[in-house]
Amino acid sequence: VILIDGTPDNRISPLDRGLAYGDGVFRTMRIRDGRVMQWSRHYAKLAHDCMRLGLTCPPQDLLTDELGRVAVDHPEGVARITVTRGPAERGYAPPDLSRPTRVVSSFAHAATEPSRAGLGVHARWCRTSVTVQRALAGVKHLNRLDSVLARSEWRDSDIAEGLMADPDGWVIQGTMSNVFLLEGERLATPLLDTAGVAGVQRERLMSKCAGAGLHCAEDRISRERLLAADAVFLTNSVIGLWWISRLETRVWSPHPVTARLIGLLDSHADE
Amino acid sequence: VILIDGTPDNRISPLDRGLAYGDGVFRTMRIRDGRVMQWSRHYAKLAHDCMRLGLTCPPQDLLTDELGRVAVDHPEGVARITVTRGPAERGYAPPDLSRPTRVVSSFAHAATEPSRAGLGVHARWCRTSVTVQRALAGVKHLNRLDSVLARSEWRDSDIAEGLMADPDGWVIQGTMSNVFLLEGERLATPLLDTAGVAGVQRERLMSKCAGAGLHCAEDRISRERLLAADAVFLTNSVIGLWWISRLETRVWSPHPVTARLIGLLDSHADE
Repeated sequence: VILIDGTPDNRISPLDRGLAYGDGVFRTMRIRDGRVMQWSRHYAKLAHDCMRLGLTCPPQDLLTDELGRVAVDHPEGVARITVTRGPAERGYAPPDLSRPTRVVSSFAHAATEPSRAGLGVHARWCRTSVTVQRALAGVKHLNRLDSVLARSEWRDSDIAEGLMADPDGWVIQGTMSNVFLLEGERLATPLLDTAGVAGVQRERLMSKCAGAGLHCAEDRISRERLLAADAVFLTNSVIGLWWISRLETRVWSPHPVTARLIGLLDSHADE
Repeated sequence: VILIDGTPDNRISPLDRGLAYGDGVFRTMRIRDGRVMQWSRHYAKLAHDCMRLGLTCPPQDLLTDELGRVAVDHPEGVARITVTRGPAERGYAPPDLSRPTRVVSSFAHAATEPSRAGLGVHARWCRTSVTVQRALAGVKHLNRLDSVLARSEWRDSDIAEGLMADPDGWVIQGTMSNVFLLEGERLATPLLDTAGVAGVQRERLMSKCAGAGLHCAEDRISRERLLAADAVFLTNSVIGLWWISRLETRVWSPHPVTARLIGLLDSHADE
């Protein structure tokens, strides 16, 4: 079932600004045992992203209820919430009084081999740069053509993710994930002040590292620096955390920190 | 009436990638006497933009027929065609076999005072930068949040357009229009190699200037250079051509070239 403004439906208005201009935001979340993981954090991020676009965020209770209704279909699946500025007349100017559209849906969790988390994943560099837009940096909005184009660069199912840089060559993220480097005993993750999506797992990992006395900083990261790291990790709310075993010709061995980071994300898994 | 894949309908799938990721392109065109102006050029641009995204463009005959059906509602209005990558499973990777969605619709032409073309329009600078993405520069795709944010910066209806620059300060376009400068006897328009939409009227004006022996070049244009121009023009397929009479504190007097440019765009109006 797909809920549109709370009603089971499978169609939205073609005049919706979400379609016309990508004028909206979304969240993708893991469902376990019929419950959305880290829902409080996801709601906080959704509210923040709505604020960045000047959208009215639906109340948390309403979304909690709707997530519960769609989670029944895929109790071990994936949920998505989309909030758009709603239907409107033609033209870029947001309407004086917009009626946001909310779409709440669930999906089966695409079967990733369980080996991936344990054995590491293969990655590649993408030629497509991330889109640069300071006013939207960090926001998970509906303008995602950079990830679409980057993800179109390969079809080899052995490659789990592609890494993207900005036009100046600074590594920003994967097509669907955030990136962390292990350098000695410190972690680093790209600064997302001009581009990229600041995911909830990225925020959680940074926060949990701080709590565990593991140093983690945001920084500008070149491709060379990434290749020189002791380990490279990918995070998002569906995959959790993966480590990269191969990035084109660069090969990494398993690193003991991986288990520790997975453990950090698993501890108090709902916070 | 709105035609979705040729059928009168007012709803699309919420799983459409046009909504999920802004994965599609569009055209906005003027209807006069029930016919879409410069349809051949618009179709060529649509086909080109589809190619840039790896989308299959609907055949021209099909769209010609559908435009004819919607034009009946607004014979002096505005038509829009949207082509998306269609509905698909979750995930950035385009499906192996996508079924593009096409939405063809018409709208009343928002009553702009006829004075605007003649008396000049007021404009402002936008704080929001254009989004930088070389892989999509020039393409009229559905990722238009930069224009949405820029157009949200003012509500004063006396201001007809806002001008946008890239993060390095180079002027790129208006929120909904392309920009031309008159400098002595030469025209210049911003180079759109890293950002911006290359509109059909921009292409027509450049081509007609060349035919009329009027020099027009694409170039990097700073804000200072724009302010020093003898005249500044805005073009798009709905407004045609406007001249800017005031840009914040800078005021321009009417310039005789304006009538000549409007005449050029009006000559063989359907080419």
